[in-house]
Amino acid sequence: MCRQWGRAMPVPALSAEEIADLLHEVFPQAFYPGCGLSLVRVDCGDVRVRRTYHENTIRPGGTISGPTMMELADFAMYVAVFSAVGRQPLAVTTNLNINFLRRPGQADLIADARLLKVGKRLAVGEVTIYSEGADEPVAHVTSTYSIP
Amino acid sequence: MCRQWGRAMPVPALSAEEIADLLHEVFPQAFYPGCGLSLVRVDCGDVRVRRTYHENTIRPGGTISGPTMMELADFAMYVAVFSAVGRQPLAVTTNLNINFLRRPGQADLIADARLLKVGKRLAVGEVTIYSEGADEPVAHVTSTYSIP
Amino acid sequence: MCRQWGRAMPVPALSAEEIADLLHEVFPQAFYPGCGLSLVRVDCGDVRVRRTYHENTIRPGGTISGPTMMELADFAMYVAVFSAVGRQPLAVTTNLNINFLRRPGQADLIADARLLKVGKRLAVGEVTIYSEGADEPVAHVTSTYSIP
Amino acid sequence: MCRQWGRAMPVPALSAEEIADLLHEVFPQAFYPGCGLSLVRVDCGDVRVRRTYHENTIRPGGTISGPTMMELADFAMYVAVFSAVGRQPLAVTTNLNINFLRRPGQADLIADARLLKVGKRLAVGEVTIYSEGADEPVAHVTSTYSIP
Repeated sequence: MCRQWGRAMPVPALSAEEIADLLHEVFPQAFYPGCGLSLVRVDCGDVRVRRTYHENTIRPGGTISGPTMMELADFAMYVAVFSAVGRQPLAVTTNLNINFLRRPGQADLIADARLLKVGKRLAVGEVTIYSEGADEPVAHVTSTYSIP
Repeated sequence: MCRQWGRAMPVPALSAEEIADLLHEVFPQAFYPGCGLSLVRVDCGDVRVRRTYHENTIRPGGTISGPTMMELADFAMYVAVFSAVGRQPLAVTTNLNINFLRRPGQADLIADARLLKVGKRLAVGEVTIYSEGADEPVAHVTSTYSIP
Repeated sequence: MCRQWGRAMPVPALSAEEIADLLHEVFPQAFYPGCGLSLVRVDCGDVRVRRTYHENTIRPGGTISGPTMMELADFAMYVAVFSAVGRQPLAVTTNLNINFLRRPGQADLIADARLLKVGKRLAVGEVTIYSEGADEPVAHVTSTYSIP
Repeated sequence: MCRQWGRAMPVPALSAEEIADLLHEVFPQAFYPGCGLSLVRVDCGDVRVRRTYHENTIRPGGTISGPTMMELADFAMYVAVFSAVGRQPLAVTTNLNINFLRRPGQADLIADARLLKVGKRLAVGEVTIYSEGADEPVAHVTSTYSIP
């Protein structure tokens, strides 16, 4: 769990670098050099991740596909869970609900995940996805992870 | 729209072959020879699709990743929408809610999508995902598509 | 849990009468004579409940309000959980997702709940709500209950 | 729609008093003196509403029932839609997804609704519900309204 140590903001259970190392180790199919995913900021249960734009994520209409955004949201939640509860790679999604709000342009996607509850068995959070350079979110997600 | 023509079961607006051709044409990044996705059965607003097992879909714990199942569910809905309303490649997901029920083994995934409502502007459906060879579903999805 | 006893259909953990008695006992604010809710059929993890039409459930437009349908769906899931796992009145909803499909007329509502998974800690199910006399569903729900 | 008029914060399409009057007029079954629901603050697409505690909302375990929170969230969204698009009483919920996070005590509930998107046909928002006197939310909701 995050540690407070009398500070204004609690220290995350794992740092961005530690989470990146963990992902490389346990999930190399999804997180490898050149995969397009990166960790921008990691606070306790509150993280920002990024997905570099790649043309193979485009769907009919010239916008980024829904599954690309769902994958990014799920990744952001996974990182947020690590930031709050530490090394738990077997944490799994039990529910994810996404509302697509606006069609993203051909640009990087930025996802902000924030945990609303961290229980012993379940963590619930929300993720807001932005298209780089635009103010309004392109998608909003709520999700629950089961912690083993 | 599907046509009834006095038959017991309405004829889908597009056949499986027509939908596969449309997907190849408009969404070649997602649907190409060897992509692992295929159409098994297409009735009106009621379809079955399949995703061939591939080791790069495995996540920590040796099970198939959540985003793989979300992508398959979204694909199944897209095909179901075509089967009911015809050539509408600019139909887009507005909402998707998934519950992960059981961890799939290392096997093909089969997704059955069924539309619950086909309106002028929105189609709502549910998708049940199975792991080949197992009786109990591994995930259940409801989703809404916006039809332009 | 339901008992099979070599029968084609498993016997529910509690019968309709036992569940009605339990509800009267533990939840008299919601389930009392004249409340409008009743149990129509109880199989194992597969139940039908009914809500009698009452004019105070009408919302602008002359249709039955959304919260009326959400309450009915949650009630149907509660009954389905009892049918599958027995006397667990402290089971609580952790997630409920509802899609409103068509506007019900001024008639009774019928809700069919079916559990998709019954685990040690969580039960997941879906509920389809009908307006009496109409073939097409008016709402579709998925929901998760936590079992203490 | 809300009007900006060169101000820092846009003026809502309807004020709290205008919305309360509208609700009394069009939805007297739900919004009447003594109903327990009240409007605390109305900005453009960003509102706070309250539900006074009443013992008939208690469920087994001594906590407030899920349907009570779902009704409050739906009410908060309805008010938020009016604040953004004006007098549209025939706006209806098409989707609502709720995660229950913590069990509220026997106290008033406060719901903050914020619209994430206001389109021509759909408004999407999120609602966070608090139990008076507690810092952590008891439930989180996302919902879509269809605007006629």
